[in-house]
Amino acid sequence: MTQLTENLKAKNAEYASSFVKGHLALPPAKKYLILTCMDARIDPAAAFGIDLGDAHIIRNAGASAKDALRSIVISQQLLATREIILIKHTGCGMLTFENKDAYSVVDNNLGGQASKELKDLKLDFLPFPDLEAAVGDDIDYLKRSSLVPEDVPVSGWVYEVETGKVRRVV
Amino acid sequence: MTQLTENLKAKNAEYASSFVKGHLALPPAKKYLILTCMDARIDPAAAFGIDLGDAHIIRNAGASAKDALRSIVISQQLLATREIILIKHTGCGMLTFENKDAYSVVDNNLGGQASKELKDLKLDFLPFPDLEAAVGDDIDYLKRSSLVPEDVPVSGWVYEVETGKVRRVV
Repeated sequence: MTQLTENLKAKNAEYASSFVKGHLALPPAKKYLILTCMDARIDPAAAFGIDLGDAHIIRNAGASAKDALRSIVISQQLLATREIILIKHTGCGMLTFENKDAYSVVDNNLGGQASKELKDLKLDFLPFPDLEAAVGDDIDYLKRSSLVPEDVPVSGWVYEVETGKVRRVV
Repeated sequence: MTQLTENLKAKNAEYASSFVKGHLALPPAKKYLILTCMDARIDPAAAFGIDLGDAHIIRNAGASAKDALRSIVISQQLLATREIILIKHTGCGMLTFENKDAYSVVDNNLGGQASKELKDLKLDFLPFPDLEAAVGDDIDYLKRSSLVPEDVPVSGWVYEVETGKVRRVV
């Protein structure tokens, strides 16, 4: 056990001791999905008012719609969600590098085999240079995809990690 | 505005009005990442005791390590996290279908163009028939990858949506 896993067990035992939501159904009760970033400064349930059981919450580096497509299709087609809310945020790490930088860092930190694996996978880290433009691009991506039905409401937002405020962009 | 986006704005205004964590740094303070499922019944911050700013939280359908590789490499190589905690859960939707079922549902629900897009993308929905085996497989995948350094602690867990309890598997 590491210190972090010990902490997880202890905190979870507290949580479970007063847990009363064991009856919730698999499909989200409010039939929507939130797509946001993995950033440590975002607590979607608290910041976006999501009650347990209400919404799918997808999180990846940069809140990338392309990276989330598999999860979005499952959410909508197999679990009946009907609205997509995409939220990127200020101060995102994805604004700070380009693919070539990430490839260099991996090569320097992890060496040739990791570098080769990265190239073989043709991994695109999906960074972006402009936050609001990236929100727009991802919304366009979702609207263009025939895998997202035209009647699904899709909106794009920016969350400010400095203020806790969210504002709509698209 | 939909009802859901109006609700988001109202709940966020409440959250922001008492927000005092605008000073947190971009890299996670406790240098770890949690990978879990998008399932609506999981609140990672509460259930796993994660304070704001402490950890990256990646979420996708089924808590798939393969699907999360891009985010994991960014988290570790660009933002200095050093431990991976992977948590799948009971009652996961990924236990209930196979790729061919999802392909059929898309074809039935969305029609030929969506079906063609799915095939062109060769989208693998990454379902799994056995929960604990899937945790083990994903941990093996991470340990085999040269993109995850050997000295990074990696553990695999199951969260019980019926009880709120988490237990370690690997």
